[in-house]
Amino acid sequence: MSAPVYLDHNATTPLAPEAREAMLRWLGEDFGNAASAHSFGRRARAAIDLARQQVAEAVNAHPTEIVFTSGATEANNLILKGFAATQTPSVLAISGIEHPSVSEPARQLARAGWKLRTVAVDREGRVDPDDYARALSESPRLVSVMSANNETGVLQDIPALAAQARSAGALFHTDAVQALGRIEVDFRASGVGAMSLSSHKIGGPLGAGALIVDKRVELAPLLAGGGQERGLRSGTENLAAIAGFGMACARAVRDRGRFAQVANLRDRLEQELRARGAVVFGEGAPRLPNTVFFAVKGVAGEALVSRLDREGFAVASGSACASAAPEASATLLAMGVETGLAHCAVRVSLGTDNTFDEVARFLQALARSLGELKGLVAQAA
Amino acid sequence: MSAPVYLDHNATTPLAPEAREAMLRWLGEDFGNAASAHSFGRRARAAIDLARQQVAEAVNAHPTEIVFTSGATEANNLILKGFAATQTPSVLAISGIEHPSVSEPARQLARAGWKLRTVAVDREGRVDPDDYARALSESPRLVSVMSANNETGVLQDIPALAAQARSAGALFHTDAVQALGRIEVDFRASGVGAMSLSSHKIGGPLGAGALIVDKRVELAPLLAGGGQERGLRSGTENLAAIAGFGMACARAVRDRGRFAQVANLRDRLEQELRARGAVVFGEGAPRLPNTVFFAVKGVAGEALVSRLDREGFAVASGSACASAAPEASATLLAMGVETGLAHCAVRVSLGTDNTFDEVARFLQALARSLGELKGLVAQAA
Repeated sequence: MSAPVYLDHNATTPLAPEAREAMLRWLGEDFGNAASAHSFGRRARAAIDLARQQVAEAVNAHPTEIVFTSGATEANNLILKGFAATQTPSVLAISGIEHPSVSEPARQLARAGWKLRTVAVDREGRVDPDDYARALSESPRLVSVMSANNETGVLQDIPALAAQARSAGALFHTDAVQALGRIEVDFRASGVGAMSLSSHKIGGPLGAGALIVDKRVELAPLLAGGGQERGLRSGTENLAAIAGFGMACARAVRDRGRFAQVANLRDRLEQELRARGAVVFGEGAPRLPNTVFFAVKGVAGEALVSRLDREGFAVASGSACASAAPEASATLLAMGVETGLAHCAVRVSLGTDNTFDEVARFLQALARSLGELKGLVAQAA
Repeated sequence: MSAPVYLDHNATTPLAPEAREAMLRWLGEDFGNAASAHSFGRRARAAIDLARQQVAEAVNAHPTEIVFTSGATEANNLILKGFAATQTPSVLAISGIEHPSVSEPARQLARAGWKLRTVAVDREGRVDPDDYARALSESPRLVSVMSANNETGVLQDIPALAAQARSAGALFHTDAVQALGRIEVDFRASGVGAMSLSSHKIGGPLGAGALIVDKRVELAPLLAGGGQERGLRSGTENLAAIAGFGMACARAVRDRGRFAQVANLRDRLEQELRARGAVVFGEGAPRLPNTVFFAVKGVAGEALVSRLDREGFAVASGSACASAAPEASATLLAMGVETGLAHCAVRVSLGTDNTFDEVARFLQALARSLGELKGLVAQAA
């Protein structure tokens, strides 16, 4: 059997060679604690400064606006809880399709006295403009809407949503984890107050992420201690991971054109899926070029993922981050998809290294799998 | 000039070859999100399970008691804030020489309504038994005392302190970051309820640590989201770092005898330092085998560190994690050392790779540096 084909890039991505290179320096002879005053410490500090510059350039932010974290889950928790800790409990608004690392901290805040307002999305997974306006009329202090959904790939109009939130006096945050490196992400131009990024979704290593935050925003640190990252995130900086993240950002900017090409593979995939009677979720909305979230009625997503895994294709049945708990996708339920169909959902998320040949082989394996799972005679496509 | 000699192992350590090896697998062709249901995810999950077993064995805990974090700062914040979040504000007791990643979260809790009781230490840096008993009589819910101090290396009698705290109805936590791999650390036998560990102080990579916690202890997660680590620490697991941490633990256990040998180098160093009129802090107390925190009256620590750096020797003037802020060591002030002398403090922390020759060369460089800084003619020792 040939090497398995990885089609789950919204869960995590293979490490890019440039990112690996940047990391290896700090996993070999060189090492250091960036807080140390000696030569080892200074070299470590310089590497972190370089990465900060690379991340800033990738999203058009100022290096001083970047707070390195252990990942996007931490960045999301930091903005929600860190901002809330500086306020008296009030209203917090999030969309109904946020990643658990936004919705779960929001629920923790709700238990601590905040009013949590969940904004509805339409059947395509876009924030409902009327409900958004109603939510803003309740004067939330903080509004969080993701740039691109991890399951459907559906994009939100972040500049417009941010402008409205600002007018209503709210701090606007966007989880831009799935957008980074796939579509243009511009911190300054989008007018957001805060933005979360992840390294391992763009060919960088696990263990690094960032909160980009307007310096006028007052935050309490989630991790207090030695005072790293302007006192907003203590803990010895994860040098190798941060260096790799910086390099992955530089590469993502350079390769954005290449990423757009992925849409060709995606289109080929969707054409065939529709021909086989599959529903593609969010197909009427602007979406990421790499993501197809589909369902074939009557074929359980879990079973199809498992069957495809045996065929050598790695795809996801729900948000990978939450797939330990096999519940129906909260994103689909918020979009009004009925539970039965939601349980049939499977996500294919492509990367720049995937090829037309891999997609063609995947479609053959899918045909065999669907045939088998439907109890029909398997037919090679 | 020959390669610089690293004598700052309490700040961070070079990556051990075995740990690097374990990491490289996950930084090469193999990768995965441990939450994914396909083959990539399963391999990632198996690697994390192995590391969990290795960490558990190193400290005599059960694998299910281990919560992987991004490092010890996060572990310390998690136990303090995560435990406090499940309680009505009450009394919290910490020693006066805790690392900032314990003392700063404790201050945050104090601002949120907790009464923070700081337990005095004696002139050698050991917890004062009378003051400890008085603090326990105030019925704290949580008591945190570090196993070994990062600056002086002074050890506390953790089993005794834990037993007293337990009798008083408190949860006892110890920051065992500097103890792990250097002296025996036994979660079960020590009778503590929770313990923090770091990877990068024992030859493992940056970006990994653990909170070992009795499963009967109720905790609120600091990072909420996908529900990883039994819901206590969400965020995609940092696979390479966790694998490296596990391997570093296995190695640390195996090499503990070798670490004890470091005491010979330390003794040689201290003998010479005393001959030159240096004060060695905490010398009357049981200490880690690798740490010498000393001062030569009239010679500023910062200046000496800088001079030694130019000579090719990396040492620290205070806690590296806080050395961006050149204040006198809080540990020394708590021990009753006068501020002037505290500003002269320099820390040498040895590793198993340091040699007698390096220590001899260091002593020569120290003699030259002291001579110069004292305005005397430099004399090669």
